[in-house]
Amino acid sequence: MNTVITISRQFGSGGRLIGKLLAQKLSIPYYDKEIIFKAAEKSGLASGFIEENEQKRKSFYTYPVPNALWGIAPNNFDSFEAKIYAAEAEVIENCAKGGACVIVGRCADYVLRGKAKCLNVFVYADDSARVKRVMEVYGDAPNEKKAQKLIRDTDRLRSRHYRYYTDNEWGKSSEYDICVNSATIGIEKCVDMLANVYVAIDAE
Amino acid sequence: MNTVITISRQFGSGGRLIGKLLAQKLSIPYYDKEIIFKAAEKSGLASGFIEENEQKRKSFYTYPVPNALWGIAPNNFDSFEAKIYAAEAEVIENCAKGGACVIVGRCADYVLRGKAKCLNVFVYADDSARVKRVMEVYGDAPNEKKAQKLIRDTDRLRSRHYRYYTDNEWGKSSEYDICVNSATIGIEKCVDMLANVYVAIDAE
Repeated sequence: MNTVITISRQFGSGGRLIGKLLAQKLSIPYYDKEIIFKAAEKSGLASGFIEENEQKRKSFYTYPVPNALWGIAPNNFDSFEAKIYAAEAEVIENCAKGGACVIVGRCADYVLRGKAKCLNVFVYADDSARVKRVMEVYGDAPNEKKAQKLIRDTDRLRSRHYRYYTDNEWGKSSEYDICVNSATIGIEKCVDMLANVYVAIDAE
Repeated sequence: MNTVITISRQFGSGGRLIGKLLAQKLSIPYYDKEIIFKAAEKSGLASGFIEENEQKRKSFYTYPVPNALWGIAPNNFDSFEAKIYAAEAEVIENCAKGGACVIVGRCADYVLRGKAKCLNVFVYADDSARVKRVMEVYGDAPNEKKAQKLIRDTDRLRSRHYRYYTDNEWGKSSEYDICVNSATIGIEKCVDMLANVYVAIDAE
């Protein structure tokens, strides 16, 4: 097996869980936050700071400036973010060189385009299902309104991040091989479906 | 089995073939053009005329007026089109009442929303793959340029038709349960994948 599965997902769709279960089912490595830490090690940047800033395509007018950045000019800030992206991209390429794996998020589908055989998946779900899931899974969104805000804000950042680095539209079906609604299909059936497709494709 | 599979598809993606093979594999009825003829019978409109006009959301400035309509005012023309849509919707509902089946196109996903248990699928493919397919399958598009134009024009009509009657965006993943790229996954694997998902969902 050498095909890489990349998973992009709407916040609260369970895409990360699908990725994790899929990797388990196929007995292949799984990467998401780990990439950040590896990238941090490579670039010498503190991992916490990367995590906080990597998906914030910000202007100095709309976002508060992190304490660590007072005194750094906007241009430097941009190049700082680009450095994070480049470090992550390098890690993603190395993961793919290692053979079959599941990579969740981090524009992996774009980073690996033309560089590795990939099955690119987008996981989404109806708003109501995502709100329910976020309220169940994430302790910091105890009510519906907060969950809705968290979903909206997180997806806006993901979308902006993806567009900035890829010039493509996040979640637009043509960017992926399969898009699946985890709420109507169900998490387990998504995993089964993707595992079956993966095995068929990887055998080619 | 009682779940209805609706398939929307980009022109040249092979979505119609996928629908046909899927129906064969599951041994359930398949509908596409037949719906037009049934609708024609019901509404008393000549089927050829329906076929010609059903997906043309036109203004009298951008489209030639069909001969049959000279002397009919724009308002009447609109209501004529609406009549075709209503007749088709009725046929689609009757198909669904008959139990499990595959319905290709005709806004079936929207028509059956809240009325039948559905697996809504969108089939798409890269432009280059669609051009290749159109050149192979359709005799009236013998060169690349013509095939590209045929794809662009047909999809524009489908998109406009869908938006007009549903107020939703044709091909937007959130409207469907599964979206699949027939060029990267392959026609046969799409059929296998959808058949497996169908069986799992229908058993619920």
